[in-house]
Amino acid sequence: MKRPLILVSNDDGITSKGIRHLVETMKSLGEVVVVAPNSPQSGMGHAITIGNTLRLDPTDIYGSDVQAYECSGTPADCVKLAKHHVLKDRNADLIVSGINHGSNTSISVLYSGTMSAAIEGAVEGVPSIGFSLCDYGHDADFDHTLPYVKAIAEQVLKTGLPKYTTLNVNFPPKRNEDLKGVKICRQAHAKWQEEFDQRYDPNGRRYFWMAGNFVNHDKGEDNDEWAIANNYVSVVPCQFDLTAHHTISVLNDEWDINIK
Amino acid sequence: MKRPLILVSNDDGITSKGIRHLVETMKSLGEVVVVAPNSPQSGMGHAITIGNTLRLDPTDIYGSDVQAYECSGTPADCVKLAKHHVLKDRNADLIVSGINHGSNTSISVLYSGTMSAAIEGAVEGVPSIGFSLCDYGHDADFDHTLPYVKAIAEQVLKTGLPKYTTLNVNFPPKRNEDLKGVKICRQAHAKWQEEFDQRYDPNGRRYFWMAGNFVNHDKGEDNDEWAIANNYVSVVPCQFDLTAHHTISVLNDEWDINIK
Repeated sequence: MKRPLILVSNDDGITSKGIRHLVETMKSLGEVVVVAPNSPQSGMGHAITIGNTLRLDPTDIYGSDVQAYECSGTPADCVKLAKHHVLKDRNADLIVSGINHGSNTSISVLYSGTMSAAIEGAVEGVPSIGFSLCDYGHDADFDHTLPYVKAIAEQVLKTGLPKYTTLNVNFPPKRNEDLKGVKICRQAHAKWQEEFDQRYDPNGRRYFWMAGNFVNHDKGEDNDEWAIANNYVSVVPCQFDLTAHHTISVLNDEWDINIK
Repeated sequence: MKRPLILVSNDDGITSKGIRHLVETMKSLGEVVVVAPNSPQSGMGHAITIGNTLRLDPTDIYGSDVQAYECSGTPADCVKLAKHHVLKDRNADLIVSGINHGSNTSISVLYSGTMSAAIEGAVEGVPSIGFSLCDYGHDADFDHTLPYVKAIAEQVLKTGLPKYTTLNVNFPPKRNEDLKGVKICRQAHAKWQEEFDQRYDPNGRRYFWMAGNFVNHDKGEDNDEWAIANNYVSVVPCQFDLTAHHTISVLNDEWDINIK
């Protein structure tokens, strides 16, 4: 069988610990090409670079058997450049993003650079997975996640994914007990409750830091927050049609807009 | 009746023509507060500023009857700062974003800063609308859109929206015939086919510009691309749960992951 071609990206930057683990794990499954940001891009959501230029420079940090590039753009830019410039006529069999240093459960999927790379893969019709560890430490322990990263990637390489879907995979932080297994979940209904820390710079001008707490409003047990809290790996299949389909008939019933 | 409190933001920046039209139109409906980026933020998707500081400075460009602030952050940052710092204990009755200089139909909702402000409003449970004109010109003619902007905002102020939904409203460019009316639509299945224009800087280092064409794969007539092509105003109700709910049972059926 032909070795699968696997594109790896992330949002923490090409030198972060999480992507190094992901590259090592993918090397056991196929040919690996890395296109990842040259600086941290957390919270970049699905941003793309349209009013500015992009840099893409080869790097040998992953050795001679891994073609790797560092990119000045966002995670979505990296996947676009990989597809249309680096890979060109070759098609990736799998796109993986991460392993993110920090949770991307629930509403965080909207703000996540990690998931934007995976969603961009889904837009291109390539089976894609975003991996995140619910531990923000730069030296977080990823060892408990790696057998699952490999198994989930193998499963997707084997069976594919429904077209235009991607997986949002989150791992609990390393605890004293083994992970309990995988739960296929929906996205929990939770949100960030922001607080802004107001300060003054040395010139007396005001500035802010965004801070805040994650608040889970979801009482269900079929969602990713529940899975992580109960030491399961959460796998949420995601799609990118934002249409609230059930609302179309409501608006068609209720609205009465006549412009004379 | 109490005058409604309307928060206005956008992604083209606080001085763009589109937001100036939106502020003027909203002044006829209620008390207007503006928190908008101090520079263009197109293509920022749902990015937020978490590794850097934010500026928020008052400005009198909208006169003494409009409380206005320019912000160094993204559209999503603007809505968060507006809610948690500027408005504090007051609740907006409506959040409007735009009027964007350029289309946000179909897949562009993912990349759109305009829509990220509206989606952020929906996350906060506030009825929200993103408005976009399918004309990228800085001096585009918005006159044909304004009666619809007002009517749609009035309708939402009157009847609200289903909780956690927002509207993605796009207008055809000014043509020789009148707009035909409003179509409630789903998001078309279309994508950007990128091309990267490779150049070299004065030091001989390579860089890229992202370019490309919008390709519509959708043969349906119930979507926003069809509506715009046929001179209708498109209104797509949107939500922010990315779960591919129908895929959960597929994965539960097909997957077999056992980690020893």
